[in-house]
Amino acid sequence: MFFDRLRERIDTIDSVVCVGLDPDPGRLPDHLRDHELPRWAFNRRIIDATHEHAAAYKPNAAFYEDSKGWRALIETIAYAHGKDVPVVLDAKRADIGNTARQYATLLDDADAITANPYMGRDSVEPFLSRADKGVFLLCRTSNTGGTDLQALELAGGETVYERVATLADEWNEHDNVGLVVGATAPEELEALRSRVPALPFLVPGVGAQGGDAQAAVEFGLADGAGLVNSSRGIIFAGEGEAFADAAGNAAKRLKRRLNQHR
Amino acid sequence: MFFDRLRERIDTIDSVVCVGLDPDPGRLPDHLRDHELPRWAFNRRIIDATHEHAAAYKPNAAFYEDSKGWRALIETIAYAHGKDVPVVLDAKRADIGNTARQYATLLDDADAITANPYMGRDSVEPFLSRADKGVFLLCRTSNTGGTDLQALELAGGETVYERVATLADEWNEHDNVGLVVGATAPEELEALRSRVPALPFLVPGVGAQGGDAQAAVEFGLADGAGLVNSSRGIIFAGEGEAFADAAGNAAKRLKRRLNQHR
Repeated sequence: MFFDRLRERIDTIDSVVCVGLDPDPGRLPDHLRDHELPRWAFNRRIIDATHEHAAAYKPNAAFYEDSKGWRALIETIAYAHGKDVPVVLDAKRADIGNTARQYATLLDDADAITANPYMGRDSVEPFLSRADKGVFLLCRTSNTGGTDLQALELAGGETVYERVATLADEWNEHDNVGLVVGATAPEELEALRSRVPALPFLVPGVGAQGGDAQAAVEFGLADGAGLVNSSRGIIFAGEGEAFADAAGNAAKRLKRRLNQHR
Repeated sequence: MFFDRLRERIDTIDSVVCVGLDPDPGRLPDHLRDHELPRWAFNRRIIDATHEHAAAYKPNAAFYEDSKGWRALIETIAYAHGKDVPVVLDAKRADIGNTARQYATLLDDADAITANPYMGRDSVEPFLSRADKGVFLLCRTSNTGGTDLQALELAGGETVYERVATLADEWNEHDNVGLVVGATAPEELEALRSRVPALPFLVPGVGAQGGDAQAAVEFGLADGAGLVNSSRGIIFAGEGEAFADAAGNAAKRLKRRLNQHR
């Protein structure tokens, strides 16, 4: 069970920090560019420097969408597992029938995945049915366009994202469903926590996006499981040869900052 | 401009058929399995057999999400271009900030992409801003879960998917936006055509999913641009050594069937 394993990890290292592994090609340190797989070289050093503070790693699939990228991703996941850290693949996928089943093979490697609810239950069912794996459904995202659809009011009075939370709760037959909820609107985090007490949240937006750390911790956890993510704020905290040390320090600082509210 | 190019292609070959290139690993003919890139070997033969009837090809990214898969995809796109057929990458992507920009690099190869509207405008802006490329936003999908969110009624009276259509129309500043609209509900296709007369539709579900071909053609086209897709109904029309001939015949049959309604 993914969330049991996550709880155990959080307890062991006393941290809810999720480190986003988004190796933006334009920002990799120069001295790694000659490596055969620069993204893997980068991630390995980041993992070495941060794993003691990382409850999970979250590679975003966007940064691995090419032939060498997938090799870098697979190496990265295996290496994180070697450090006993679970991996959430931030893929935001969903599709129909045999295509959704194909996407679900991504969970052969990763421990959990993010998924997009727009196409409805059957489009994420192949993820949901992997009882041993986790599925974080996009619910309320912290970007400006998050209001375009998610915040629309339905005829029954609730918003679209509130309905998504309720649906996710219904789809949680294997205790393996969580929600992606941005930290930029603390009152929404609080209201969603009341609505779905059992669903762990993956909360992005605390680093570079400047979300509210206190609310993320207070309302993000369900029975001790939940993740607060920072990507660029950790992995690009420093530059040049010392980038990994800077990332380790940034992860440690975020852990302490979040632990003030646990 | 993608849709101008698509119109030209449709006129030249007198076909609105889009061939979905979804090389399900479990269904590839045995004699291609020893090829270094079986998916590419398969797609090349499918393209050879179908390109005279193909207004576009639509590889679904799910079937290429591994190291060799991306090589197969890139080869496939280049080969389709060599036959003068545009390629819609069915990726259903969307994400925030630098991640969305990274996903938009998929359009360096493909001519158009499918995108998911749930995260709102900024999550697809890097696609939209590529004025020379096409963006098909998921609007009303034909799977059973398509009703879970898309068909919900908003406080103003319209459905979520109708709002998506309206938003897509607003986001169409470069005349490069289309919609994905399933063929399984002809009356919805008709109503959406009235709502957004200028947006070409990509209509899946006419093949294996059994949608309504007449409605797909009657309401799917905007000023002559639009696509009606079949994936498994064409590429897996036959088996064994003769699979490509069977695919060619299936594409031709679908073209004729659709052209009865143009």
